[in-house]
Formats: sequence, structure tokens, C-alpha cells
Amino acid sequence: MALGKSIRRVEAKAKVTGKVDYVMNMTMPEMLHVKLLRSTIPHGKIKNIDKRAAEEIEGVIKVVTGEDLQKLDINYYYGPAFRDQPVIAIDKVRYVGDPVAAVIAESVEIAAKAVNYIEVEYEEFEPVFQVLDAMKEDAPIVHDTIRPAGSFADLKSLLPKSGSNICLHYKLRHGDIEKGFEEADHIFEDTFTTPAAVHLPMEQHVALAYLDAEERMNIWTANQSPSFVRSEVSHVLKLPESKVRVRVPYLGGGFGTKLYVKIEALTAVLALIVKKPVKLALTMDEVFITLTKHATVFTLKTGVTNDGKIVARKCTVAWDTGAYADIGPRITQKSGFTAAGPYDIPHVQIDSYCVYTNNAPAGAFRGFGIPQLVWAYESQMDIIADKMGWDPLEFRKSQVLIEGKEHATGQIMNSIGFGEILEKIDDRLDWKTYRSTAKQPDQQNPRIRGRGMAIGLKAVLTPSISGAVVTLFADGSASVYSSTVDMGQGSDTILGQIAAEVLGLPSDKVRVVHPDTDVTPYDTITAASRSTFYMGNAIQKAAEDVKRQLFEFVSEYYEVSSEELELKDEAIFVRNEPDKKLAITEVIKKIFKMPAGSIIGRYVFESHYQSPDPETGQSDDVAIFWFAGGTAVEIEVDRETGKIDILNMVSLGDVGKAINPFQVHQQLYGAAIMQIGQALFEECKYDHGQMINASMADYKVPTFKDLPARSETIIVEDPHPEGPFGAKGVGETASFGVQPAIANALHDALGVRIKDMPLTPERVLAAIKEAEESSNSRQKVSVTNEAKGER
Amino acid sequence: MALGKSIRRVEAKAKVTGKVDYVMNMTMPEMLHVKLLRSTIPHGKIKNIDKRAAEEIEGVIKVVTGEDLQKLDINYYYGPAFRDQPVIAIDKVRYVGDPVAAVIAESVEIAAKAVNYIEVEYEEFEPVFQVLDAMKEDAPIVHDTIRPAGSFADLKSLLPKSGSNICLHYKLRHGDIEKGFEEADHIFEDTFTTPAAVHLPMEQHVALAYLDAEERMNIWTANQSPSFVRSEVSHVLKLPESKVRVRVPYLGGGFGTKLYVKIEALTAVLALIVKKPVKLALTMDEVFITLTKHATVFTLKTGVTNDGKIVARKCTVAWDTGAYADIGPRITQKSGFTAAGPYDIPHVQIDSYCVYTNNAPAGAFRGFGIPQLVWAYESQMDIIADKMGWDPLEFRKSQVLIEGKEHATGQIMNSIGFGEILEKIDDRLDWKTYRSTAKQPDQQNPRIRGRGMAIGLKAVLTPSISGAVVTLFADGSASVYSSTVDMGQGSDTILGQIAAEVLGLPSDKVRVVHPDTDVTPYDTITAASRSTFYMGNAIQKAAEDVKRQLFEFVSEYYEVSSEELELKDEAIFVRNEPDKKLAITEVIKKIFKMPAGSIIGRYVFESHYQSPDPETGQSDDVAIFWFAGGTAVEIEVDRETGKIDILNMVSLGDVGKAINPFQVHQQLYGAAIMQIGQALFEECKYDHGQMINASMADYKVPTFKDLPARSETIIVEDPHPEGPFGAKGVGETASFGVQPAIANALHDALGVRIKDMPLTPERVLAAIKEAEESSNSRQKVSVTNEAKGER
Repeated sequence: MALGKSIRRVEAKAKVTGKVDYVMNMTMPEMLHVKLLRSTIPHGKIKNIDKRAAEEIEGVIKVVTGEDLQKLDINYYYGPAFRDQPVIAIDKVRYVGDPVAAVIAESVEIAAKAVNYIEVEYEEFEPVFQVLDAMKEDAPIVHDTIRPAGSFADLKSLLPKSGSNICLHYKLRHGDIEKGFEEADHIFEDTFTTPAAVHLPMEQHVALAYLDAEERMNIWTANQSPSFVRSEVSHVLKLPESKVRVRVPYLGGGFGTKLYVKIEALTAVLALIVKKPVKLALTMDEVFITLTKHATVFTLKTGVTNDGKIVARKCTVAWDTGAYADIGPRITQKSGFTAAGPYDIPHVQIDSYCVYTNNAPAGAFRGFGIPQLVWAYESQMDIIADKMGWDPLEFRKSQVLIEGKEHATGQIMNSIGFGEILEKIDDRLDWKTYRSTAKQPDQQNPRIRGRGMAIGLKAVLTPSISGAVVTLFADGSASVYSSTVDMGQGSDTILGQIAAEVLGLPSDKVRVVHPDTDVTPYDTITAASRSTFYMGNAIQKAAEDVKRQLFEFVSEYYEVSSEELELKDEAIFVRNEPDKKLAITEVIKKIFKMPAGSIIGRYVFESHYQSPDPETGQSDDVAIFWFAGGTAVEIEVDRETGKIDILNMVSLGDVGKAINPFQVHQQLYGAAIMQIGQALFEECKYDHGQMINASMADYKVPTFKDLPARSETIIVEDPHPEGPFGAKGVGETASFGVQPAIANALHDALGVRIKDMPLTPERVLAAIKEAEESSNSRQKVSVTNEAKGER
Repeated sequence: MALGKSIRRVEAKAKVTGKVDYVMNMTMPEMLHVKLLRSTIPHGKIKNIDKRAAEEIEGVIKVVTGEDLQKLDINYYYGPAFRDQPVIAIDKVRYVGDPVAAVIAESVEIAAKAVNYIEVEYEEFEPVFQVLDAMKEDAPIVHDTIRPAGSFADLKSLLPKSGSNICLHYKLRHGDIEKGFEEADHIFEDTFTTPAAVHLPMEQHVALAYLDAEERMNIWTANQSPSFVRSEVSHVLKLPESKVRVRVPYLGGGFGTKLYVKIEALTAVLALIVKKPVKLALTMDEVFITLTKHATVFTLKTGVTNDGKIVARKCTVAWDTGAYADIGPRITQKSGFTAAGPYDIPHVQIDSYCVYTNNAPAGAFRGFGIPQLVWAYESQMDIIADKMGWDPLEFRKSQVLIEGKEHATGQIMNSIGFGEILEKIDDRLDWKTYRSTAKQPDQQNPRIRGRGMAIGLKAVLTPSISGAVVTLFADGSASVYSSTVDMGQGSDTILGQIAAEVLGLPSDKVRVVHPDTDVTPYDTITAASRSTFYMGNAIQKAAEDVKRQLFEFVSEYYEVSSEELELKDEAIFVRNEPDKKLAITEVIKKIFKMPAGSIIGRYVFESHYQSPDPETGQSDDVAIFWFAGGTAVEIEVDRETGKIDILNMVSLGDVGKAINPFQVHQQLYGAAIMQIGQALFEECKYDHGQMINASMADYKVPTFKDLPARSETIIVEDPHPEGPFGAKGVGETASFGVQPAIANALHDALGVRIKDMPLTPERVLAAIKEAEESSNSRQKVSVTNEAKGER
């Protein structure tokens, strides 16, 4: 009744009419406010903090520093992969923006004023800002020790010894890389870079913490992972999980920056100290330095035979995870193992390094590292195709991973729709006709058109856990209890649809209860495009648990087997016996002998998984499934200004099954346009560790003027046997290929190849100029037979 | 680990340190306040309401009358047994205090002021105040039609035709009553009465209602039955249940007055009208007229043989349910069927009448009608024993219902500890020695001592439903989701203990989540001493559902059967293999491959039940179990003042199994002392329908000075095979016998028999005087052989 319907988002009306309550708007009696003093140096030791003047200001309750917190019986460090981040700085500061002191005051204004009265004396250390510099043996060391969190035990063997900024070295060894390069006729080696970027959800990070009557720590927070916040804050405060309650109402966007603990541990500790409700709301400039997208340097060395087969690929990726690891080590590993791209390559070597620097911490960003990798490997695919005279589409098609092929991790692929994605690109961009037409640029017209494409794959987060409870009420309505955070992606809507479909209810009779760790079962995180699959599965099976209980009663009532029953249109039918049917409300009335009661279903879904070998990254079962995405664009570039306009963008994703097609289209479109900014102009700029464009005035995001003139989103459905009704997920797939598709189109238009993101007008003009200057060799790739001999 | 331990109440510290938030203290931005205008006449028609002057007062938002509400698309009437109570009066008013108009204003003070500016014109009808008058054919009719609620369908055949104030006539026919009286050698006929009384919890009725961002109706309320409020308000507002959310935080006492819908429907409708949060808090004088305890007139005709066997008993009970039925019809039936007492009587006839009058509505009151019945039948037991020269204890013992005996409903008794209760009374009151000592009153001393006893039984509410979810977290703590309202009876504590016991956890690792219909499963009500049994069962089985899932994993892990496993001390052990054990936290870590996730258990418990025959009240399975209680007292009465002092009170209850013995003792003591007030002085007094002592100044409740000098509570444990660890319940058992025990002691002391409650000094003095005047026949009971011949 509900599946595959494009019903309206359940919270849409409340949002557009301004009725939705965000944490930012919440207030409590006696609530105090917090402002943070942040480090002004990138690396150093705190010698002294003088807070006397600040504490004398009327309305200031307390100024809290690391020294104060060390007197408490708490665990001082937190973090999702490593517990390396202090609740507030102690001894050391590691980046410009590291919180050094917290002012608790009666108003935001007083707290903000008091921050200026705190004096901090530092001993400065030499900083390191570039990821390749930080990997050097003699680099300044950002963290003296590596502190992996409990949940990171599986990767302990990948940790290097302390005394290095490399905090994780992920290795994949598949086939025999040396033999692979021997077999190759051509070798290509290219290095690609991406800069740090920021997420910028509309709502800033904000948390409100208080002790309740039972002295339990309550936290309202704008966060994507309430279950994680609960367990991590319970670790910091040394409380059992049942003494910590985390609630998330509506969320004003996330994109990864609101995952794990950001300001929650600090806010909770402050509430513990003053025994009053405490609210900490970051300003937008603080959001910029709270979490960024990993800057990367990625070198690909690829061996290809004369007949167009990639036989070997060596990938070396360095991830700048900044001053604190956050989830960087997991990105280094989980995205790392896809660095060779969605291709059937017999010999693969991957080395993926997570590296501390003195930049702002980097973590999850929609795509979880995949866009950085796709940027490199799909740019190189076009470089190779171009150099060797193959059509880029055919070159990809000939070796793309499809059902039954072996991925570099050793896993056999299934439910992976690249075949259809490439066919649809061919069709929608009129690819063959276009490629066969000789392009004659009009020398009078400075605006040149080009087309490009890119595809990428991502493994879904595995292992991971989603629990759900589904309760059917006596009036035939139902509630779904899920810790999935609806942050604008529409999860409340589609999760309700899944339950409605199983229970034979119209979707408006099902309600999804918002995350509250006192209420909604454990869920790993709302991220990684995982909720439709994981939480969808949990909800489907919890609803089936309800259905089973109903069937148990009705099969006894009619003396038929459960197999003969059918649940649809709010009633249970005996197949082929039209007079035997009972409305759901009647069944409940009969079960409980009154029109009351409820039927409860529950399920905790967890994925099968085989931990990969730490030395080779090999595993039969490294991911429960894979996402396949693709992007194709037609652009127009102005040779005189270097500005790129996107005329047409086609975004494709294999979602398994679209539970709500309209929402899937929106997700595909949203992921793609978010990438346009990063492809064309977004970039965090630093001056000696100080981010110099940390404001919406200086850091530009795409506006309506930057959007493609034409846009198309295409849903590919290659159902997954274990997905809820075959569904996989969609949040990130259309983000993978945007950057290389545009760069490939730029090359198609002008013949210039840019290997550093973003494709700013300045960079495009410089590339044009360079190309003109060395008209003999437009690109610097090493495509020589000699290169092979040199090894 | 937790069972049978007298751990401290979990919320005790928060309550005594003032940290607990009651609805009364809650506030919301833009919240409006309500005051009610109530009828000043007992019976009549509203001809006109002029609200113009009131609405002109600054700060008054709106004055709402029945006329306004009739414009809305709502169901106008609500009620737990009959839907006879209007959201606010339309056309008719039925008692002094019936709400006629609601003023919504910016402050309580403005609303209270504006109420005085509303002018109402009535057409007065003849009222009826006495229950026996109301049963007469020509009595004024309070309700023109009888409107049974859906959940009352089982008793439809007991409804009389409209046009009578008798809204339910419950009949029980067991054996052959005529034959029984033939067999009897003596016949006793007595009529006993009880007045209306009030519950007076410390916290008044209060509700706060608002529409949330999703336009769902949210209600915070001081109520004992959140699940019922949800379904009834959803009926009134014509919303699916999932669009109504009811939450109860801490409750400041209930005793029955906060059951079902009281002010919630009105508050919700007002919030719907003004689209802002609306709070309605009653004042204490309004609490008096919101709900009372049923006044009753109970005539018992008992046939006894010469050898002391009661062979026939005819019971005629009239319940004054006031202007609205509330749960009166259910009391009339469910308590009605125990009217013949806990005795093995072959021939029984019961007629129990629920009767409308123009008094304030009467409903559930701790004991649910049982104390009124026990008052009568246990007084008559002593009258009979006295007249026929038997010891009251032996007389009871010889025919009390014990295991295997048949109750008048036809059900065979099991788990019913009357044997032990009577033995303990014998022991603790030194009964035999005392009775054998000739009492020689000291004529100089006006203070005379006497001893008395009484026992009573009650069927637990059947059928009824309790659902629970138990979730075990990765850190080995757990939460229990239950809609049971902790109103001071300690349910949070013992329900947590039950889950802890099953899961092998210390009880401080288990938390009970407070009722929230969005969160906690359906539960019929928190009342009727049912929560330990019903909710305890649901929680025990939900926790076993968790345990089963843990065992499933561990039995596979160790390759042993589940039967070989044991869960204790936060770990799972293989029996007789000491090296094979896993901490619970380890098991979860192994199940989910990380130290995260949760195990969810769920259970909905419902009782077996066989609906009784409407003509005879016979059923093999009318109640899943029965409560047995007893009271014995020694009193001292002052012949000159008539004042009774209680020297010693022994309260006994068969609780099956005491989960938390300290709490059980507290419950026994609390129930008993609450009855002392009603035995000695509590009574609602009316003047032409106007309650004239509706204030704490005029209506006295027991103070410390009124308490027994010595008190003892005795736990009897006759385990119930279906109870959680054998437990039954305890909230009401010690309330049953207090009134007749005192009256019987009074008779023991002075030889006077009073048949009307309460035993005020005035009434005692009058009885003494009457006894002195007719020294030949102290009492008016008809104990003649002639009486038998007259039939």
C-alpha cells in the first residue's frame, strides 16, 4: 500500500510553516550559556591561563579550563576511532581553533565578552600543515601517543608505532603487483589532490545538557548519531549508559559534520560542574573549524595492456586528518579499499595513510572519502583512454565490476548496477553520436562545450547495527521507534512507508518516533547512506514480528495455516475464502477481548561480515553490499575567463529499489549539486594554520546561479536480496563522480587536464596557458615504454 | 540478585530533595491558563450564557461554552464505562460543579477573575440526591439515554432500558437462593451504608495540552492511565491514536481519582481551539467535586444453620455513581460479584445497581468498592457470631474460601491465603486468650477497650493488558519501557527489580522509563493493585525474551544447549563448566562485533478470562486471581465523648511474593491508615447538592494524632503460579477490613452496633444512648425463627 509511492515528506508542512523546534531554539529555566576561547596558535603548550578578569565580570558563573576538568573523575579523551580529543585542551593545543577555555555565563553576550578577558600564555611548537610533510620522519609530532577506541580494535594491527603522524596505514594486497606491471604495455602515474572543504548545514552545532531529577545526564543535541553520543558521553562521565539520555529533535542538516561527539562531551561536563542546564551553540565561523573534509594527495600508478586491459594499479593515498583523528582512520581504511576504482583489476596494491597535521580536524563528509578517490581514478581513466585512443565509455564498460566479478578485496560483487548506469549515460548524453562528431571549435566563440563522465563505488558501512521497535495500536495505527535521525534526507517518511507496507496500512497511519536513547533502540549512525538498508531492514523485520503475532491469532481463529493468510488494506484475509477476513482493529479486539492493547514487534539487524586480513585487506565478506553511482555532464567553459558553466548534469545511482521515488530523485540531485561547489570553487584556505575564509562571506557555496541549466536524475534499480524490498540506499551515490566528470568534460572541451581541485577560473586559465606554452605535450603523465623499463 | 530485596525507592532522593518535576510546575512559551465556571444548580437546563463581559477583560483570550464546542467536528462525550460525560456541559447540568464554561486567559488570575463575569441563566429541574430515591420509578431522570463505551460491550445485556437512573443492574445467581433460605435455621437481615468520600492526593488534577509541529495533540497530565487517556482523547478529537501523545512524569498520588479522562479531553479541545499550549490545573476545592468514592446502601440477608453454616446469602447493593457514571458500572459488576464475602456459601443471589443521582460523580477509590462491601458483610459476620454465640474468628475460619473451594461466581479458588491470615490474626491479637477472658468493664473508667477483625477478598481486574519492552545496552545496563505510573506506590522500583532479577543485573543498572504513549507500550491502567502482576509479568517475560536471545548466541558459541546456561552476576555461565563463562557485555560485543548495539525484548501480557453469563454471573474463569486481606484492631472508646482511639492495628495481605518487602509493608500500612479516616470521620456533606465541606479545612483527613499507637503489617505469601516470581499485588488489600474491624471492636467494647459509616463520636454517643434506652434488645437485627416463617 505504501511501497514505491512518492508520498510527501511527513515533516514538510511543519518545516515550511516554521513549527519545527530545533535544539537551537530550546530554552530551559535557569539555563546558562557557553562561549569558547580557542587557541590562536597551531601547535604549542599552554603555559598559563589567567581567567581572573573574566570571572569577575557580572553574570559570568565560571571559566572552565583543562586544569579544572582534570580535578574531576572523568575520562578525558573521546573520539570515534581514536580517543585522542580532550574534552577541552590540556597541556597542548594542536590547531588554531582548539578549545582552550569555556566561559559559562547567564547570557551568550556576557560569555562572549568574557572570553576576551582570558589571557593565555603559550609555548609555541613548530607546526606541520601539509600532509606529505607530516609523513616525513623528522616532522613535528602532533600526538605523542595513539589512543584507539574500543570499537576500533579490529584495526589495531594497522596502527604504526607512536612517534609518527601516520596514525593508520591501511594496506591492500591483491594479486601480485610487480607481476601486474610486468604484464602491462603502458604505465600511467598521476598525482591528484583535493583541498579541505566544509559541510555547512543550515543549523550550527548546538547542545543543551542538564542533570535531571534522577541525576541522569540529559543531552539535547543537533547530532547524527545519538546512540554513539550516549555511549561516548557515558564513557567520558563514567556513567552507565542508562544514566545518559540523548535526544535529537529535528536536525537542520548534517552531511557528516554532526556525527559522533563534537561538543556534547564538553557541554555535559559543564552541566555537571554547574548543576544547571547549559547550552553551547557554535557560531558559523566555529563550524568551519570544527570539522572539515579530508584534504588528500593520491598517486595512482596504472599498468594497461595494448588491448585496453588494466592489469595493475598501485594506489597511494594520504589523508590529512588534521589535529584530531575523528573518523579519519575509518575513512582511510573503508574508503581506502576502493581506491583502485570499480574495475576488474587482477593486481592491486593500496596504501592508505591517515595523517595528523596542525589543521582543523577532518572527518566524515557526504561520500566518506569516496569523492576524493573517484576524482583521481576517474580522471586517470580518461587520461588513459585519451592517450590510448579509446572511447572513455567503452574503456570503462570493458572492465567495470559487474555481478560475479571479484573486487580487489577478494569479495565477489553482487547487486551492482554499473552496466545499466553506463548504458543510461550513453543514452542520456547521446554519447556515441557526440563522440563520433568531429569537434571544430569556433575560434570566434570563447565558450567551448565538452562532455565528461565518471563512475564510482562505495562499500556500505559494515559491520553496523540498527535496532527497531514497531508497535501496532488498537485503532489500527502504528508507531516506529528508530534512532535514525531525519536531517532532511526524508528518513521519517520512507521508514514509515516500509512499516506501512508490511502491515498493510496507509502510510499516514504510521508515525516514526524521533531519536531518544531512552526510547529508540541502538543505531550505529545516521550516515553512509546506510539507513534505508540497515534501519529499513530492522523496521521491516520488526513489523513482520507484529504481523506474525497477528497471523498466529488469526490462523487459530479460522483454523488455517499462517501461509494461507494475507495482510493488506488494513485487514487479514484467508486466501481464496473471501468471507473469511478480519480488520486489523477487529483482530486486536479479539486478542485482548477489548478494543485496546498493542502488538509490539522488535528486531535488531546486523550485517554479516568477515574482518579483512590486516596485511592484505582480503576478505570474502568485507561489505554487505556496494553502492554504484555515476555522473555525466555537458559543460561550457569560457576560454577568456576560465569559468565553467554546467549545461546538463545527469546523476545516476543504483538504489536497489526506490521506496519513495520522489525522495530518491531529490537525494540524487542534492548530492550532485553539493559537489558542484567543491568541483568549481569550494576550498578552505589557511595562513599558518589559521583558516582565512571561515565565513559564509568568504567561503562560497553554490547558489541557484551555479546550478546546471538542465539536470536529470536517474534511478537504477538492481535489487539487493537482503535489502528491505530490495532497497540499498542513495544519500551519497550521486556525489561520487561530479568532480572528475566536470574535469573530464573540461579536457574534452579544451584538451587541458587539471589534477588539483577545485577547477577555479584561475586554475583553468593557468592550465590553458600552460597547454598553449607546451603545445607538444599537453599533459605530464608518464606514458612511456621507458617508464616501464625503469622499474 | 534483586528479588526480595528491600532496596530504596529509586525516586526517593529526587523527591525529598525537591528535584522532581510535576506537571503542576511545567510551563511552556506562550502557554495559556484555564479556569472553569461550574454549575451552581444540581439539575437543570442551560438557557443562556452571556460571556461578553468576561471576554472584554484584558488578557482573556476566549470563553468557551458548549455552544462553541458543538461547532467542532469532535465526539462530544467521553467516559470509561459509558460515554456520558460532555467535554463541557451542553443543554443540561447534572450536579453542582458541572463545568459550564472555560475561560482561557494569559494568567490564572485573569481567568479566575473573568469567570465571575459570565452570566448563566438556568431552567431548574427537580434533583435527586439519595440513591434509593433515584431508583424509584417516578424519580427525576438524570440521563435520558445510556451510552455504553465500546470497551463495555461485554455488559450491554446488563443495561436497563433508558428512562431510569439505574444504569447497570448486575445479577449473580448461584445455587438456589430460595432453597438456601429453606435450609437455614436463622435469618439475619441488615442494611449498611457508607457516605461519599474523597481521595485527596497531594497533587491536584492538572493537564497541559498543545499541538506539536506535526499537529499531533500532546498532553502532559497527572493521570494514572495514560494509555486510556490517549485512546479516549483520540476518540474525542477524532484523531488516530498515533496523533495523540500522552505523557505522565512523576505523579503526586492518585488513589483512583486520576484514572481515565478527567480534565484531559477538555484541555485538549481548548488547545485545539486556541492553537497554543493550554494548562488547566484544578484547585483543591475543585478536586472534591471532580470524583468521589461511591456512597452505598447494602442490604444483606443471610441464612445460617444451627451448626454455624451460612447456607444462603442475598445481597442488594445500590451504588450512588453521581451525575456521571465514570467507572461506576464496572465497580457495580466487578466488585459486585464479591458482595457475599470470602465464604463458601452454596446459595447466593446478588443484585448490584449502579445509580445516577445529582451528586458529584463517583468512581474508583483505592479498593474499588470492596471496602464498602466488606464493611457490610464483615459487620454482619460479627452480628451473626455474636447472636449465635460463636467466636468470630472460628466462625469465619469454618467457612472461609480456601484453595479448591468454589466462589459464588462458580470459579474454583486458588492461591488465596485466608487460612494463614486468620491464623496470624489469632496469633498477633492473642485472640483466643483475649476472648476467653471475661471482660469486666471498670465502671469508673470511661475508656473501654475492644478487639475486632475483618477479612475481605477482591478479584484482580480481568481481563486486562500490560505491554512492556526491555532493552539491554552494550554496557550491561538496561531500560524497562512501561506505561505503569509510579504515583508513590513504588512501581518504578519493583518493576526494575523484576527485570534485574531475570537479567542477572544489580537493580541499579536497570531504569524504568516513565509513561509516554509515544514510547511505552499499552497498559490498561495503574490501579486495582494490578501492576505487579500484570506489568510485572510483561516485564519478566520481555526480559526473558532478551535472555533467550543472549542464550541463543552463547549456546552456539560454546556448542551447548540453552538449558545448560545460567544468567547471574552480569554473566552467562555454562553449568558445571567453570571456565566457560562470558560477561553480558562480552556477549553483546561478540554478537554485534563491536562494543555497541542493544538487545530488545518485548511482551504483551493479557489474562485468560471467561466472560460471565449476564443472567447468572457464572464463569469458570472470571478473575485470573484474587486478593485476600485482613485487619485486626484493638481500640479504646471513650464512653463519655464517643471518641475511638486505635491502640493496635494489624494489617495483613496475601501478596503472593514480596518483590520488595519494605515497599509491601509500606503499602499495607498506607492502605490501612487511609481507611482510618473513612472509618472514623471522613464524609462528604451536601446541602441540596452543594458539597458543603469541600475544603481541607472542613473535610478532615487523618493526621499523625489519629494513627494507631501501635501498627503491624504482616506479609502473607501464597505464591501465584502465574505471578512474576509468584507475586500478586498489594495496593488495596489492607484497605478492605479496616472499617468493620473497628466497628466490630466497638461492639466488643460497648455492645453497640453501628451500621452507618463513619463511626463519629456523635454516632457512637447516640448508639450508646439508644442501647441504654432499650437495654433488652441492644440491636435491631431480625434474628427470630418467626422471621423465617414469614417468608
